[in-house]
Parts: sequence; structure tokens; C-alpha cells
Amino acid sequence: MKLLEERIQTDGRVLGTEVLKVDNFLNHQVDPALMQAMGNEFARLFATEKIDKVLTVESSGIAPAVFAALALNVPMVFARKKQSLTLSGDHYVADVYSFTKQETNHILVDKRFIQPGERLLLIDDFLANGQAVAGMLQIASDAGATVVGAGIVIEKTFQKGRALLDEQGVRVESLARITAFENGQVVFADESPVVN
Amino acid sequence: MKLLEERIQTDGRVLGTEVLKVDNFLNHQVDPALMQAMGNEFARLFATEKIDKVLTVESSGIAPAVFAALALNVPMVFARKKQSLTLSGDHYVADVYSFTKQETNHILVDKRFIQPGERLLLIDDFLANGQAVAGMLQIASDAGATVVGAGIVIEKTFQKGRALLDEQGVRVESLARITAFENGQVVFADESPVVN
Repeated sequence: MKLLEERIQTDGRVLGTEVLKVDNFLNHQVDPALMQAMGNEFARLFATEKIDKVLTVESSGIAPAVFAALALNVPMVFARKKQSLTLSGDHYVADVYSFTKQETNHILVDKRFIQPGERLLLIDDFLANGQAVAGMLQIASDAGATVVGAGIVIEKTFQKGRALLDEQGVRVESLARITAFENGQVVFADESPVVN
Repeated sequence: MKLLEERIQTDGRVLGTEVLKVDNFLNHQVDPALMQAMGNEFARLFATEKIDKVLTVESSGIAPAVFAALALNVPMVFARKKQSLTLSGDHYVADVYSFTKQETNHILVDKRFIQPGERLLLIDDFLANGQAVAGMLQIASDAGATVVGAGIVIEKTFQKGRALLDEQGVRVESLARITAFENGQVVFADESPVVN
């Protein structure tokens, strides 16, 4: 998605060889018009799928996910993150390990909000090691729901998340695909011929 | 806002005399069309104010805030919640006490994202004891920014938050004002004659 790649070039900050900070338009300060454009793009990419619900994880997934859900005319559910957990039986739960923070969190979804047989579109801001998406896949599986695919804002192709999802046969659509950071600059994967 | 009051009547769950659960359309499962309508309504209510930025707190404030920001054509910033804190000097920080959870959290905003003199609209999902809005007011004050008002999705008039904000001269616009829970039912304040 050209608009997003340009924004990453202009406003993203590369830290070292693995980290891209986009906190001035995506995950702390948020550009609502860009979120809307991204939501519309996710809806377009998955237009041939019947989708019942959009699932994401708080907090950075919420803005792109709510616009995707609006465009698809379906509800959005955001999984809650918790460090500690009192299991009640009312929630689907998955563990999500953060390589950045080197800690395990739990993500939870109330069982009322995913029904067996529902078709889910997963949305997340980053695909790096794939732990958050893997957690959502587990929750969907536990609920007996079907995942039609994962819509990712920024994918880092050089980390293992994409391979992990490919192995599981999950369709992944990323709005920006980054193959490397070189000398503080972002290198994007060859663009698809889609006009944005 | 009639649409919201009707939704609370239909889908809200009253627990005891103080708690309203709206996790099936606002703060866990989210109705994107309702969020958009609420965002538009906030923009309409504050249309005469010059607004530079919308400020909210993760996670439940994000969806209504991003639609308000879209309608106002300004960026949205969401404060991050943290239980523990390593102060770096890069962030504005305020304490927020949760009466429900009986614990103190910190909310943080990167200093790059609020500039002195900026005019902020605060958005939050609930106004009960007013702690989250008070935290945002402190951050705005520390940043030298001006708060034009607070847009609240659901206000519980019988808790002390509204009085606290009135004392500070903060304009509050709430889309639904609840005066009591009686026999498991929601009692709304007299409606304003505004047609929604």
C-alpha cells in the first residue's frame, strides 16, 4: 500500500537492525485518515471471503481493526492482554510471548463473542515473530471458528512470523512488507502491481 | 444520544447498583457503526472549538476517539497504561487510581505528541469517579496544552467524576447520562431536546 510505505519512509524511525518505531502515526499517536484507508484496503483484499467478525489484540490493533470491521459491516472484537490470570472458564485464553519484552502475556476473549463456525479476519499492527497472530489462531481454534486470513499493517519478512503462518496455511495480507533495515533506511519487498 | 441509549437498554447488563457492562458493543466486542456515529456526534458537539488533537486512554477509548479525530480531521493520541514505571523524562505521566480494581496505574504520553499551546479534546468510554479524565487533565497541564472539553460515552451521574470536572471548569459532553440503576434497569437523565 503506497500511502503506508510513503508514511513509513517519512515518519518511521529505524532503531538498529530490527526495530521500526511508528508511534507517531500508528501505535501511540494515530492518523485516523490513514487508519480508515488501511481498513478499507483490508476489506478490499478479503472482499471475496464471507467474514462474520474481525478479531484483533489491544491496543495497537484496535484502530485499523475497527475501520476494517466498519468497511466489512461486521463487529470487531479485541482480545484483552493480561500479565496475570484468574481463570474463570468464561474466556478463551492463549499465551503470547514477547521477544522484545522477553515476557509472556495472556490474551483473552470472552466466550460469548466468538461462536463455533464463525469466520474471522485477524488484524494486527505488526507481524514479526508471529506470536500475537498465533495466539489469536489458538483462540479461534478453541472456539471452533474459522480464520479466513490475517491482515497485517507492517510485516517484517526477515523474522519468523510469516513462515510460521505459511506453514499453517493461513492467508496473510500485509499492507507494507519490510525485508531489511539498511543504514537506518527501510527496504520494502517488491511491490505488487496493485494500484493504491 | 438516542441510538446509544437504546443500545444500552437492549444490550447493556446491569450488575448490582453501580456497574454497567457494555462489553458486547463498546469495550470488548465493538460495533464500528455505532463508534462512527458517536465520533461524529462528539465532533458536532465541539464543532465551535478549534481542536488540534484528540487525547484518550487505551484501550476502550480508542475506538470512539479515532472516529472523533477522523470527523475533526486531527490526529488522535492514546495514553499508554502501565502498572510499573521506569521514568525516562521522555513522557508526561499521571497516576490513575481504579476504584473497581483498587489499584493505581500510570498513564503515559510521549512528550513529542503534545505540544505547548495545543487544544485538546479528551475522550473516554466511562465517566464514573473521573480518575482517567483527571489523569489526562494533569498530562495536558504538564504539557502546557489547553483542554477544550471532555467527550464521554457513558456518564454515571451518581458518582463523583462529573462534580470533580465541573469544579475545574471542564466542559463535559456525555452521549448517555445514567442517574441510577433500579431493579437491574438503567435510568437515564432527562434527555436534551437535541434530535439525533
